Amino acid sequence: MIGEFDIDDRLQGLVDRIVDSYVADPSTRHIDRGYLPSRDEVIRIIDMLFEISYPGYFGRQNLTFKNVRYHVGELIPRVAQATYMQIFLSLCHSNEVQGHYDPSGPTDQAMPFDEKARSLTEQFLGRIPAVRESLALDVQAAYDGDPASANSDEVIFSYPGLIAVTVYRYAHEMYKMEIPLIPRTMSEWAHERTGIDIHPGARIGKRFFIDHGTGVVIGETTDIGDNVKVYQSVTLGALSFLKDERGRMVRGYKRHPTVRDNVTIYANATILGGDTVLGEGSTIGGSTFLTSSVPAGCTVISNPPELKVRPPKAEKTGPAHDFNI
Amino acid sequence: MIGEFDIDDRLQGLVDRIVDSYVADPSTRHIDRGYLPSRDEVIRIIDMLFEISYPGYFGRQNLTFKNVRYHVGELIPRVAQATYMQIFLSLCHSNEVQGHYDPSGPTDQAMPFDEKARSLTEQFLGRIPAVRESLALDVQAAYDGDPASANSDEVIFSYPGLIAVTVYRYAHEMYKMEIPLIPRTMSEWAHERTGIDIHPGARIGKRFFIDHGTGVVIGETTDIGDNVKVYQSVTLGALSFLKDERGRMVRGYKRHPTVRDNVTIYANATILGGDTVLGEGSTIGGSTFLTSSVPAGCTVISNPPELKVRPPKAEKTGPAHDFNI
Amino acid sequence: MIGEFDIDDRLQGLVDRIVDSYVADPSTRHIDRGYLPSRDEVIRIIDMLFEISYPGYFGRQNLTFKNVRYHVGELIPRVAQATYMQIFLSLCHSNEVQGHYDPSGPTDQAMPFDEKARSLTEQFLGRIPAVRESLALDVQAAYDGDPASANSDEVIFSYPGLIAVTVYRYAHEMYKMEIPLIPRTMSEWAHERTGIDIHPGARIGKRFFIDHGTGVVIGETTDIGDNVKVYQSVTLGALSFLKDERGRMVRGYKRHPTVRDNVTIYANATILGGDTVLGEGSTIGGSTFLTSSVPAGCTVISNPPELKVRPPKAEKTGPAHDFNI
Repeated sequence: MIGEFDIDDRLQGLVDRIVDSYVADPSTRHIDRGYLPSRDEVIRIIDMLFEISYPGYFGRQNLTFKNVRYHVGELIPRVAQATYMQIFLSLCHSNEVQGHYDPSGPTDQAMPFDEKARSLTEQFLGRIPAVRESLALDVQAAYDGDPASANSDEVIFSYPGLIAVTVYRYAHEMYKMEIPLIPRTMSEWAHERTGIDIHPGARIGKRFFIDHGTGVVIGETTDIGDNVKVYQSVTLGALSFLKDERGRMVRGYKRHPTVRDNVTIYANATILGGDTVLGEGSTIGGSTFLTSSVPAGCTVISNPPELKVRPPKAEKTGPAHDFNI
Repeated sequence: MIGEFDIDDRLQGLVDRIVDSYVADPSTRHIDRGYLPSRDEVIRIIDMLFEISYPGYFGRQNLTFKNVRYHVGELIPRVAQATYMQIFLSLCHSNEVQGHYDPSGPTDQAMPFDEKARSLTEQFLGRIPAVRESLALDVQAAYDGDPASANSDEVIFSYPGLIAVTVYRYAHEMYKMEIPLIPRTMSEWAHERTGIDIHPGARIGKRFFIDHGTGVVIGETTDIGDNVKVYQSVTLGALSFLKDERGRMVRGYKRHPTVRDNVTIYANATILGGDTVLGEGSTIGGSTFLTSSVPAGCTVISNPPELKVRPPKAEKTGPAHDFNI
Repeated sequence: MIGEFDIDDRLQGLVDRIVDSYVADPSTRHIDRGYLPSRDEVIRIIDMLFEISYPGYFGRQNLTFKNVRYHVGELIPRVAQATYMQIFLSLCHSNEVQGHYDPSGPTDQAMPFDEKARSLTEQFLGRIPAVRESLALDVQAAYDGDPASANSDEVIFSYPGLIAVTVYRYAHEMYKMEIPLIPRTMSEWAHERTGIDIHPGARIGKRFFIDHGTGVVIGETTDIGDNVKVYQSVTLGALSFLKDERGRMVRGYKRHPTVRDNVTIYANATILGGDTVLGEGSTIGGSTFLTSSVPAGCTVISNPPELKVRPPKAEKTGPAHDFNI
């Protein structure tokens, strides 16, 4: 009958073949293993952090100074419980990946993971007021930096750059505490929503503004000062990758640029290399490709490639075979 | 016990510190204020506009000419109610930002906001048939312009360019009516879904097609004619920003390009400046960086930077120290 | 009363005008037509394919080798039923677009669509184990290729490149079976989530890795070998479009590049044309614009446009009128 798919023997054989493929290759299965954070829970934590960070804009509306203490008093235990559980799972997961299974942690750990997760959660949540101070400066920088913005409510309400920077600031706090897996999950959620890919390891100063933002990539060891403004599709990336004597990539050394205070980087600029430093107050023109440092205060533009203009066919006076779009 | 996070005194202290931070800085809180549109409601309005604009493709399926009148008759009051409420909130919000609180509007307003919101809602919804005519031409342009498209159903069903243009056409109607906040919320929703950032203030003619689209940015004062085709990561942006004598950005003047009829702009082209005009029928090559005008009918390509080719190591006959990826 | 929008006669007139616009133009309505796949159902199929492909990472957690057979045994019939129904609808839809309505298929078809959809569903699901083998190699390539990755769990858990490649590998299987509409719907879902636009028609070899990924475009007739690595905003696109004698685009011929084994393409490179071949082991530098072939083993970089550096105003010794960001 149309509309019904009979489960015949071939489908049963398929189940066996799929399960056999799980047995054969451990690299893409998470079976008979203990711990893995939940992406959905991490996203729920992000939602609660937005609700706490920008009260009245996200989540519950109609807040007053009478009810806001109850509101926050109800939110904090929920975000604490969720954060604690995900940190605990990520610590155990990381430990398991290194060959251990016991949630009390390896014997050389100073603290069992349960206790460590509680402590990290308190530290992390304790930084919320400081992060909020920083976010208020980011909101102001976005309003000041975009002539199309009507007011700071619009920035909080709809600017993708602010979403990405907000998630980055919280993810970076977790990264500094050496919490595994969760910071990257947070930043990839922001990447998915905004097209802006900021590695949680990057260091970014105050009053940071990303306009439009789609295609921005900021690598793990990037170091950015205060009052920096970045446009869409700017890459702050690696020039090449060191490999060890066995041809494996070396991890952890500084491979992304340093950007000093008061720098503006226009759309599509590509800045590469761990030794590349953009000096204080420098301006990098759009579509620039840079692999070396720029002195303080300088403006860099590329001598744009010469344009060839082919006149319309009717007016053509000679051959123009070199034009080919 | 593992799995439980005790709410101890330190968490209570955190609640106090967070609420204190709300008191200290008004810029990131929406507390004891009256009005703010709801992003979720704006998205619900967009969903209903898609359902009305492309009947049978989005939302309810299996429409017939017998049941479609009931379907639309049921949708229109719902979209009207939601649109009226969000416009009312955005008018009151905008008024409040300017220092007023009274929803009847400032005394120099010709009409209380409630009445104004009703009137704007009727005007806006009344433009749906005209917008639909325009969208039908956009669908045709996408099918004609993409050799990979199988039929126009596929365009409506899955092309991100059409999602972005559909949202733009409705947001632009609201922008023209000077409705605050909602048009930008609409366009940022489309930006998030598609990577295409069209400011609702841009003016775009008939039969507009964006292929692939990720990274496209079209600024507020851009003016685009009919039959224009644009590929991924094209920027129609500002060259620089005017500042007033106090160093603040001047808002509102024309700072983005003008694109005449029948222009094609290939991938990654960056066109900047309010005085830049791409003449009728011109073609702009991929990865072009343009800050000046192009005469009608002309084709512009950049003289692509000379390529350096380093042969494989085994075949190397001399030093090639200048190559460095 | 504030908050209520009265449905007056003008709204009734609007319903009539909208329905009239449906009658007038068939191109944007799906009314009195029989068949259309459901985008929501296609997304549900993708979710189930992820759950089957990466057991324990997506969907149900806490899998053991004791319960996993029941889990898969329960998933497979559900994904089979949904896939069968969407394939059936897409076959009927495609037939209807060509002017037929009968779900038994045109008389020149060897098999009625119902039967054909069952057969295609079995074939498609039968390929899951082979696709999983391929995905395991893609996961390994991502881990090996990114010095910022901590372990392969992180890759599966959060890398957008892997999401896009996973959806591509399944969509490509459907494309090869000539199933209409669904493959493109799948790839546009991945495009929306990741900013990576891989046409399901592209052919891509083993161990493929896309890093960051936003803005990547890989066209329908692209041919990619094994061990290829691609960074954000790389375009593998068409140089121009053939038109027939009536000015319509010709569809189906090879118009996108060929990339041989062991090629690396850095960020923002644009490679165009169906005759363009990147030879085995070649390396394409960032921001390169390429419309011709590269011999095996070679490294291509553009001679980057000369940089102009304007010193800070205080140090300026002469006019620098040519600088204008």
